[in-house]
Amino acid sequence: MASGADRLCEALLAHGVDTCFANPGTSEMHFVAALDRRLEMRCILGLSEGVVTGAADGYARMAGKPAATLLHCGPGLANGIANLHNARRAHTPIINVVGDHASYHLRNDPPLAMDIEGLARPVSTFVRRIEGPGAIEAAVAEGYAAAVGRRGVATLVLPGDAAWNEAPPASWAIGRPPPAAMPDERTIAAAADALRSGRRCVVLLGGPALRAKALEHASRIARATGASLMAEPSNGRIERRPEHAPLERMPYALDEVVARFRDVDVLIVAGAQRPTAFFAYPGKPTFLHDPGALLVELCGVADELEGGLEALAEAVAGAGKGEAVPPGRRALAGDASFDGLLNEAAISHIVAELLPENAIVVDESITCCRGFFALSDRSVPHDYLQLTGGAIGIGIPLSAGAAVASPGRKVITLQADGSAMYTTQGLWTQAREQLDVVTILLSNRAYAILEGEMQRVGAAPARRNARRMLRLDDPGIDWVSMARAHGVDGRRATTVAAFRSAFADALSRPGPVLIEAVL
Amino acid sequence: MASGADRLCEALLAHGVDTCFANPGTSEMHFVAALDRRLEMRCILGLSEGVVTGAADGYARMAGKPAATLLHCGPGLANGIANLHNARRAHTPIINVVGDHASYHLRNDPPLAMDIEGLARPVSTFVRRIEGPGAIEAAVAEGYAAAVGRRGVATLVLPGDAAWNEAPPASWAIGRPPPAAMPDERTIAAAADALRSGRRCVVLLGGPALRAKALEHASRIARATGASLMAEPSNGRIERRPEHAPLERMPYALDEVVARFRDVDVLIVAGAQRPTAFFAYPGKPTFLHDPGALLVELCGVADELEGGLEALAEAVAGAGKGEAVPPGRRALAGDASFDGLLNEAAISHIVAELLPENAIVVDESITCCRGFFALSDRSVPHDYLQLTGGAIGIGIPLSAGAAVASPGRKVITLQADGSAMYTTQGLWTQAREQLDVVTILLSNRAYAILEGEMQRVGAAPARRNARRMLRLDDPGIDWVSMARAHGVDGRRATTVAAFRSAFADALSRPGPVLIEAVL
Repeated sequence: MASGADRLCEALLAHGVDTCFANPGTSEMHFVAALDRRLEMRCILGLSEGVVTGAADGYARMAGKPAATLLHCGPGLANGIANLHNARRAHTPIINVVGDHASYHLRNDPPLAMDIEGLARPVSTFVRRIEGPGAIEAAVAEGYAAAVGRRGVATLVLPGDAAWNEAPPASWAIGRPPPAAMPDERTIAAAADALRSGRRCVVLLGGPALRAKALEHASRIARATGASLMAEPSNGRIERRPEHAPLERMPYALDEVVARFRDVDVLIVAGAQRPTAFFAYPGKPTFLHDPGALLVELCGVADELEGGLEALAEAVAGAGKGEAVPPGRRALAGDASFDGLLNEAAISHIVAELLPENAIVVDESITCCRGFFALSDRSVPHDYLQLTGGAIGIGIPLSAGAAVASPGRKVITLQADGSAMYTTQGLWTQAREQLDVVTILLSNRAYAILEGEMQRVGAAPARRNARRMLRLDDPGIDWVSMARAHGVDGRRATTVAAFRSAFADALSRPGPVLIEAVL
Repeated sequence: MASGADRLCEALLAHGVDTCFANPGTSEMHFVAALDRRLEMRCILGLSEGVVTGAADGYARMAGKPAATLLHCGPGLANGIANLHNARRAHTPIINVVGDHASYHLRNDPPLAMDIEGLARPVSTFVRRIEGPGAIEAAVAEGYAAAVGRRGVATLVLPGDAAWNEAPPASWAIGRPPPAAMPDERTIAAAADALRSGRRCVVLLGGPALRAKALEHASRIARATGASLMAEPSNGRIERRPEHAPLERMPYALDEVVARFRDVDVLIVAGAQRPTAFFAYPGKPTFLHDPGALLVELCGVADELEGGLEALAEAVAGAGKGEAVPPGRRALAGDASFDGLLNEAAISHIVAELLPENAIVVDESITCCRGFFALSDRSVPHDYLQLTGGAIGIGIPLSAGAAVASPGRKVITLQADGSAMYTTQGLWTQAREQLDVVTILLSNRAYAILEGEMQRVGAAPARRNARRMLRLDDPGIDWVSMARAHGVDGRRATTVAAFRSAFADALSRPGPVLIEAVL
């Protein structure tokens, strides 16, 4: 006899979903037992749900297919919501399985009962409470199609009795997302006309437009027309290749964005949001491009971005206004400040310089290492993954998931300390799964971004209450002990030389390793 | 000029809310600046929001008045929801302040935008988006009245522009909860009749019925009638006094509860839920008392419990069926197993034996130390705080909040390792605020409760996938390093003698201290 939980397992595997990031509880025991009968499903434990969902995000960004999660009731889902929010903003497909009480017990309001659908909706593209074992296959098929087709989180709520009751014979229903839509010809023609007009153009790319093939087409556009390529400030995954045209990244700081767009006449948007302030400030704009600029939306994030960019590249081929960009690695300039005490610029330089081919860089450096992206533009081919939704605490789990999906590739995490503190538990998953991750823990002992914002508010110098909410230095966090606590090898670097040596050593052997970079 | 944020600060202080557990972000900078101008508000940073909300819960349980929180947008709220759920189940008042984008920026869907109200509703008694600075005082007054009157979480969403714009003159509106309702006389008479009937009676107490004065009245009832007093399985705060009648606690395990109630003819419920299964199991009941028993609901949790119990005590005075319970400390029996390697029974005995007067015991021991409650029934006066909503990860933050509210009192945390891993960050808050907390970290390196549940499912012995989801031993967590990482003094005990010595030493000096009890 197959239980509903067995059927759920089979249905996930039938869709190619063979990795499950999990933190189960009592109501999921039948699902755990079913997973235990299907060892072709790889189950990976996270010791808090932010680790589970962040890892599922990192996995799917690299594997190109969704993982499943396994979360325990409303509170388990709640703990995972922040990184599901980031996944949503990264356009990452996830099959988010949340166990719940048996259907007939919910009305008794036992202690763990919560409104799971209410919690799930703000981060989900698809929410379905599974009514019984017979509803499981359709739920997985429709959820899978929604997650992959709409690039988002499909939440399946699995009541205990739907898991433990007997399932009817399998129908082997498979969900297939609809084909992505191509931009229409008039839009392509309008974009091509604008690109050929001689006006200053930026092509703003997001989502799948930042994958290697799409960037090849975008590079042809840039080289043919002289347009600049720009990525959004936060991106799920950029496949960076030295043969691509240069790709700048929109700055985070509002005034810098406004300054950058002041001279831009044409903005072509592909898979991206138009330039939008991360936060509003009194008296400042919230859309950041020149109000007089021509805005052409080529494709939305769920559209056929690679095809759309290819068509546009064909349309502007031979415009002949671009400049060839020399491929190959850029030599990094020496810098006198690279002697002595460690600093952010030195870390950015050293990581860009020593970056191994096909590395995966996970960037949750926040205020630190802002130079790294530009410095590594002509570096070896690598993937670059960011915090996308502003919900800090993703770097350590995202790295774990990316490493699970990418055996044989080095993962390097640029990790701010304040953000790291949300999901330190992910270090344990890195240790347990022996993942090849080098975490560069940027220890500046402050919410430095907020210290900057306090100055903008005009409230600096801060007194006791503000200092107590923005500084992390009393006591300082001992990151080498933190790594050790979670079973990860840790070391500390306070000088540039020590950091270079520790990083080179970490690259030379399998991870996980954490380097506390004292700033 | 006073900003909206200044007005919010003032309004909180006017309601006696002078402690703010916080994890702010950019959208809350004007509120941080306002807090910085009002140093009579004590601001305490948590390095993840589960710490913030768990500490606010612990504070209010002990202080008898709510704290404020300060959370950052939807993701910050999301991270705090699990412990807000526990607070809701503990009937704890909290003023839960969540910052958000400026009102006019939300429609632009910037990266951090989320449906905050949607996330807040499942855990809140009251949700209000503050429309502008002029709406702040009413929101605080009504939120305060709802939080205190309905014993729950009042969520106030504070958009950036409501915080930074100028506030109108203060009205000094103060919210007052309506008086709690007394049980009607017929209900009291019915309960008194049942108690005097000679049938076997249990008085099941929850919420404020477990405070010292209410328990005095309940003890009079027990002594006059021979009824047994029982607390719910999970309770926000029990004020335990050796002069009270014995108070048993309803077991967690379903079969034990059913067995306990098999011979109970009358169940009088005061501030408690009738006996309900924590989880449903195939073929088992979900209400656990004898279906033929007489059930009398004396008072709901928001009713006048102390007065209701007093009235009932008056009504049954002189029934003369009870037995006197000798006050004073019970001698603890020696046990041969208390030599050699450390075990749960020894920890329960030693903590009960060495418990300092007026200690606060925070119990998130889950499967460990289940004997402690009975062993400490005749111990010195102390308060006993539990995980209430089944959302694990509350012990460390709850202890921090309880300690903030209770200077001069020792806090002792019985903390399971799997649960601790959700909010280890709370150790840092304990260190920063130099809180007098002794954490007994019960390291059994497993989700032991789930191992038991797996056996009930009939799926044991577990194979690889189940073991990988239920065992925490590969690698083991090094709790002494964990403590050190967060600035807390840590030590390890593997024998009974070493534990007794470490615990006695920890009691003799101010905390925080963590003792890794290796089981």
